[in-house]
Amino acid sequence: MDIDGLDDVIFLGAVTVLSALQNVFFAYTVQNESVQKRPANTAFDRVSVASHNCIEVYPTFLALLWTAGLFCSQAPAAFAGLLYLVVRHKYFVGYLGENSQSLPGFFFGKRLMAFLFIMSTAGIVNYATNYFFRINFLYYIQTVTKASAALLLIP
Amino acid sequence: MDIDGLDDVIFLGAVTVLSALQNVFFAYTVQNESVQKRPANTAFDRVSVASHNCIEVYPTFLALLWTAGLFCSQAPAAFAGLLYLVVRHKYFVGYLGENSQSLPGFFFGKRLMAFLFIMSTAGIVNYATNYFFRINFLYYIQTVTKASAALLLIP
Amino acid sequence: MDIDGLDDVIFLGAVTVLSALQNVFFAYTVQNESVQKRPANTAFDRVSVASHNCIEVYPTFLALLWTAGLFCSQAPAAFAGLLYLVVRHKYFVGYLGENSQSLPGFFFGKRLMAFLFIMSTAGIVNYATNYFFRINFLYYIQTVTKASAALLLIP
Repeated sequence: MDIDGLDDVIFLGAVTVLSALQNVFFAYTVQNESVQKRPANTAFDRVSVASHNCIEVYPTFLALLWTAGLFCSQAPAAFAGLLYLVVRHKYFVGYLGENSQSLPGFFFGKRLMAFLFIMSTAGIVNYATNYFFRINFLYYIQTVTKASAALLLIP
Repeated sequence: MDIDGLDDVIFLGAVTVLSALQNVFFAYTVQNESVQKRPANTAFDRVSVASHNCIEVYPTFLALLWTAGLFCSQAPAAFAGLLYLVVRHKYFVGYLGENSQSLPGFFFGKRLMAFLFIMSTAGIVNYATNYFFRINFLYYIQTVTKASAALLLIP
Repeated sequence: MDIDGLDDVIFLGAVTVLSALQNVFFAYTVQNESVQKRPANTAFDRVSVASHNCIEVYPTFLALLWTAGLFCSQAPAAFAGLLYLVVRHKYFVGYLGENSQSLPGFFFGKRLMAFLFIMSTAGIVNYATNYFFRINFLYYIQTVTKASAALLLIP
């Protein structure tokens, strides 16, 4: 594709490449644990479950990231995606810790996924209103999402 | 992306967002079952296997949905995708039922996946014939797929 | 989408459709084994684990394939993707063999994934340098990747 045609997807692509790299890191951790073959086998079980949980949500994350970026606004979607990668890393590393440590829920990063989902839905609804009633409020949506993206940093 | 450039993907994106929402519903069901911690543990096992089966086919579904929509015709692909979501929901709910209930196969929705696959292949073959022989029968393919999409409703 | 607008993604789409077909083949193999219900149950276990390993890496593969093709160069990305499908097939079939046969690692096809990852990263870095310094070396990247893609055939 021409380099000027990439303006709409370059940040999304960068986040996607980063997340693929993170998946590779997870897979290597699982592989290392499985090679060491500890007798109790608990470490391998834990890292395997953690990687499995992370990878099970991965296609949903990718789908929401790209639909949010294409249909609504690119920069907030990529920002939320980056935050999601950080949350996922913390979840994965936290899972490997002590048993006494409280494990996060099965479905982590709910707020970020909900943000991406609302962005996608707003973009699709806006497309419908633009098609039927010629009412286009995409500019306002983008302003609101850009402003509210900073709120995602609140822990 | 500009709102006029979304004409080709808006339905696909809508179906994708819906399917992501469905995945979230599956994950929540699993989480609820795992929190309740029933003694026999069979309900959690069943819901976990059902969700796992659904999510394992999810990337394949997404890939076929988007290639069918981009290379062939958008509306029938989105329609087949919607039907697939309904079939998946019935599969998931049916898996949670009684043991006596006959479980559907591991690979449900075969007909819809085959439809999407044929659409993608037709689009790619048409691109090749257009490139080599300047024969473009995309219009006929789109007419046939639009007409045959209604046949998918037959149970 | 218009047939002239597909030039940038048609090979990627073809590889994606092929990989989806391969996933369907894996799922059918699992289903056949599960129906036969062998007493020792080892064959089903093995085919299930093999299919699971293959499908777990599938979204990462798709993400890298498309980002490499969109941001850098299409033909080498599709070529590496095709090779990855071949490697994956060998991995799956090899997993079903004898126990004495040494199983390949959990994370197969490392070189091909690394190639796709480097292509994606080069495209994103080139976009950044083009944006900030007006230095566009995409043409050289594409030449290098096209030349080095043949090196992937070395076993």
